[in-house]
Amino acid sequence: MKPAVVLLSGGLDSTTTLAMAKSQGFKPFALSFRYGQRHAVELVAAARVAEAIGVAEHVIAEIDLRRFGGSALTSDRAVPKGRDPDVMDQGIPVTYVPARNTVFLSFALAWAEVLDAGDLFIGVNALDYSGYPDCRPEYIAAYERMANLATAAGVEGRQAFKIHTPLIQLTKAEIIRKGLELGVDYGLTSSCYDPDRDGRPCGRCDSCVLRAKGFTEAGSEDPLLARFGVTP
Amino acid sequence: MKPAVVLLSGGLDSTTTLAMAKSQGFKPFALSFRYGQRHAVELVAAARVAEAIGVAEHVIAEIDLRRFGGSALTSDRAVPKGRDPDVMDQGIPVTYVPARNTVFLSFALAWAEVLDAGDLFIGVNALDYSGYPDCRPEYIAAYERMANLATAAGVEGRQAFKIHTPLIQLTKAEIIRKGLELGVDYGLTSSCYDPDRDGRPCGRCDSCVLRAKGFTEAGSEDPLLARFGVTP
Repeated sequence: MKPAVVLLSGGLDSTTTLAMAKSQGFKPFALSFRYGQRHAVELVAAARVAEAIGVAEHVIAEIDLRRFGGSALTSDRAVPKGRDPDVMDQGIPVTYVPARNTVFLSFALAWAEVLDAGDLFIGVNALDYSGYPDCRPEYIAAYERMANLATAAGVEGRQAFKIHTPLIQLTKAEIIRKGLELGVDYGLTSSCYDPDRDGRPCGRCDSCVLRAKGFTEAGSEDPLLARFGVTP
Repeated sequence: MKPAVVLLSGGLDSTTTLAMAKSQGFKPFALSFRYGQRHAVELVAAARVAEAIGVAEHVIAEIDLRRFGGSALTSDRAVPKGRDPDVMDQGIPVTYVPARNTVFLSFALAWAEVLDAGDLFIGVNALDYSGYPDCRPEYIAAYERMANLATAAGVEGRQAFKIHTPLIQLTKAEIIRKGLELGVDYGLTSSCYDPDRDGRPCGRCDSCVLRAKGFTEAGSEDPLLARFGVTP
């Protein structure tokens, strides 16, 4: 089995991505970050998911993006609540963390180079997303090109790294259906930007709203809500 | 004065880069990393240099690249000694840290976006270097392109970030002459990959060898050696 580094936040998208990487025959090395996020409870979910799906190794890297600020997710700024999903991609919301995916992919690249793994997986999504610049296909293509110049492979003139984005053109409902086919238990995941200490989702942030819309459109119930006794 | 993020290791190249950014009229925000390097004493030098040259702020970010390994600089693997400078660019040495500049630039980009700074400085050098892939002009150009897609600027379709590499086509001797013109005190810097606890350079690693060659060619004496009573 070929090794692959999979970015795993513990949310719905990255969990589905991990299940897809595994179903494609990769040996996954899961990478999560404690970056100063207010919803660090997602790391508990990431560990649960890594255990349930099965990974060769799960690393939680400690980095402090709070030091630089600039986002509602890494500061005391309020997380927007109750926004209409149809307007979420109009402008970049305050939950955008500057250069977050760039930082995450850079650590993934470092690990991949050491593991001699040419495959990186990231669960970015250009539909049903929150308007983040670092979730777009043109960004991923530019990152991949840079990664191949950054590394030993670049000097040797070979294409070594491929960044897989299996969700990039899927709707949230399609992602959920795909995950359910693969046997993912979404009750283990955590998507909320502003959960309580136990991981109970707020139900009203962009991430909760997109998740609920996805389950509705997929004609399925979110097992996470049942777990917390939340009425959708 | 325009703000700029300057990567500062505390070595000769990054110190000269900081002095050049300042002489070009930028207000520098210096960024260093405690990344598990065996020569963490360079951070003491970085703080001295930031103080001497004058910066708006100096941040030392804590990240653990040792966790991924893959380099003599972040493990107990021996640092090569006594190599001929003329062969250093033949192949990538064991002191190469996988994706290091990519990780460093990603944090610089995150900070720059928050500071609303469009200028990043990095002291990479494609001559008199150690054969690292992430010091080449084509890598820097690819990084800059990616950075402009990664960020809010990318969504808005504007070129916001420029990565300045003022040393990239200079020899080590030219870098030293430039720094001396700008009044840099190289006695404050630290270049060695394998110094003792007090920062005394080993004199025989690639970095020490290139530095000594540079001072010889510049017709100057290295004040760091005098400080430690080392005979060149």
